[in-house]
Amino acid sequence: MIIDCDVHHTRKHVRELLPYLPEPWKTEIAKYGERKMNAGILQQEGGMRWDTQPPDGSPPGSDPAHMREQLLDRYNIAYALLSGSGHHITAIPDPDYATALVSAWNDHTIAHWLPQDRRFKMSLWVAHQDPAAAAREIDRLGGHPDVLAVWFSSTTRIPFGHRWFDPIYEAAQRHNLPIGIHPGQGGAMLAQPAPTAAGMARSYLEWHVGVSQLYMAQTANLILEGVFERFPQLRFFLVEGGIAWLPHLMWRMDAHFKGLRQQAPWLKRLPSEYVADHIRLTTQPMEEPRQARHLLQIFEMLDAERLLMYASDYPHWDFDAPTALPSGLSAHARERILYDNAADFFGLPARLRAPDREGRV
Amino acid sequence: MIIDCDVHHTRKHVRELLPYLPEPWKTEIAKYGERKMNAGILQQEGGMRWDTQPPDGSPPGSDPAHMREQLLDRYNIAYALLSGSGHHITAIPDPDYATALVSAWNDHTIAHWLPQDRRFKMSLWVAHQDPAAAAREIDRLGGHPDVLAVWFSSTTRIPFGHRWFDPIYEAAQRHNLPIGIHPGQGGAMLAQPAPTAAGMARSYLEWHVGVSQLYMAQTANLILEGVFERFPQLRFFLVEGGIAWLPHLMWRMDAHFKGLRQQAPWLKRLPSEYVADHIRLTTQPMEEPRQARHLLQIFEMLDAERLLMYASDYPHWDFDAPTALPSGLSAHARERILYDNAADFFGLPARLRAPDREGRV
Repeated sequence: MIIDCDVHHTRKHVRELLPYLPEPWKTEIAKYGERKMNAGILQQEGGMRWDTQPPDGSPPGSDPAHMREQLLDRYNIAYALLSGSGHHITAIPDPDYATALVSAWNDHTIAHWLPQDRRFKMSLWVAHQDPAAAAREIDRLGGHPDVLAVWFSSTTRIPFGHRWFDPIYEAAQRHNLPIGIHPGQGGAMLAQPAPTAAGMARSYLEWHVGVSQLYMAQTANLILEGVFERFPQLRFFLVEGGIAWLPHLMWRMDAHFKGLRQQAPWLKRLPSEYVADHIRLTTQPMEEPRQARHLLQIFEMLDAERLLMYASDYPHWDFDAPTALPSGLSAHARERILYDNAADFFGLPARLRAPDREGRV
Repeated sequence: MIIDCDVHHTRKHVRELLPYLPEPWKTEIAKYGERKMNAGILQQEGGMRWDTQPPDGSPPGSDPAHMREQLLDRYNIAYALLSGSGHHITAIPDPDYATALVSAWNDHTIAHWLPQDRRFKMSLWVAHQDPAAAAREIDRLGGHPDVLAVWFSSTTRIPFGHRWFDPIYEAAQRHNLPIGIHPGQGGAMLAQPAPTAAGMARSYLEWHVGVSQLYMAQTANLILEGVFERFPQLRFFLVEGGIAWLPHLMWRMDAHFKGLRQQAPWLKRLPSEYVADHIRLTTQPMEEPRQARHLLQIFEMLDAERLLMYASDYPHWDFDAPTALPSGLSAHARERILYDNAADFFGLPARLRAPDREGRV
């Protein structure tokens, strides 16, 4: 006779648990499935707008023709910077696997997307957990005329100002490609640190609120570590982190630098002065003050007419149409944010000469 | 014959290393000594204003008579909330030792400081790594008429919204004591997480810039975890973290809550609406925008006339006199920030009835 003390049984589908779950988890798991162990927080189902699934049932954002119709044509988008959906990759402990994955992403975008519409441009994925390999990827594809940027997931063990990343920055500067930082999965797998300055977030709601803290920390670290003295042409743009924290950060850095400048002796200007030359922010998602004029005041404080660039976050659930910019903005400011700032930053044609979908000017 | 493969030699004083060190470290170590291992970042020598050492050579801030003269009398301070200098204690892994230490701090303040001047009031230290013990300390001394608050170091393994801290919050609410949060030593000893949202700071300069990120994370965590629904009378005040980030945080929380409210179903109001009833900020150190009107706009956005309370940070190096408030502020706002807001918050007499140093009204 035998006693087996360890037999792993399972349920056929998570739905079988539903009768035994109380609300609100019953509804949550019925609608979205179980929370993934790699983040531990609930994300909306794929984070997608319900209406963005292509007619053939393929995933939202996977069909160039459908995106062209639903985004580019509908909203008069002259250029769309494709940024993919692999923000977990820089959290993967195996750098060789991660490097292979981002290269495959990049080649797939070049093969399947760029030929479909001249308005599609792309950000080049890199696995920054291996800076030398990331630099090689930039050298491999950074000269492609439709590659406008290098793309970082924010998920990292080491703050981006550290010299560990210098090989990437050398390559990006050599190819004159700005680096976009997009929220990743802080706290998951490799990812140090936790996603907020106080530790793990409980929910996707709290995590999403906290993205701006990460961008504040990275912006301060990049500037105070002297990255922009080491790489005077290097530029970053911060995606999905909001905007209204930037005046605070600039002013606090300047105030503290005045008393403690011996701790960053390589800086030749006030910390805030590096922002205009090296940092841009994108619009989505925008803060929502109760008084619209407060957002306009923030726009003035951070010089949004130069620093802010429109982004829709299509096909994600919190997509912002171009009309999401605050009313009360001057026509000039609106044009700069919707087009000119990004054209200047990425070296795209000026507004009146933007091509149509066949590439005609 | 013997070969000893491990013999620990040392130098008599760190000064002996100076001839072998290049600048700027030679000067730094000569002036400030070696960086402490518990934080790994340089702090100014004790962080003190050079002129605050009492005439007898004792440490800055250790002599009630000297503080009375240099701070209270000189600046017409009606009440001074003594907050001590033990912000490392909540990072100590031994909770019994930490609890003994904060109790000793509290008893010492009651014995040596409160009898010296009626204007001295105190914040009660607690070792929040042991919530039950911290609650007992609040019950032991929270009824003392000169105890106006409970004092948290920000150094914590767990975000403050977690129910782990509920015993402390029950006790603080029972005694009607608001909780002050002061920067601690994130990244040192017990302290999870690192002091910024991107990981360890390189320098004291970067660490100090990052304090506001921690306060943003804690404020979001307290509100989104529903602490103020569980403890409707509980209040917090955030010390030394700046102010201009609060509008951003309120607006971003509200914007995201509108789409994700099922993740914090216990909230009965918009996240920002909890701020006015439950959160206060102190003034020092203030952000320094190049245009003074920008700070006044921020004051309006966060309702500084109700939420902001003056603090000097005496005797620290970045002390702010009451005159550090921005010019352009109305006399009414100035009075509220310098006195009325704190009087309301801590239950002190209204301005015209504030006592003199002998306690006469």
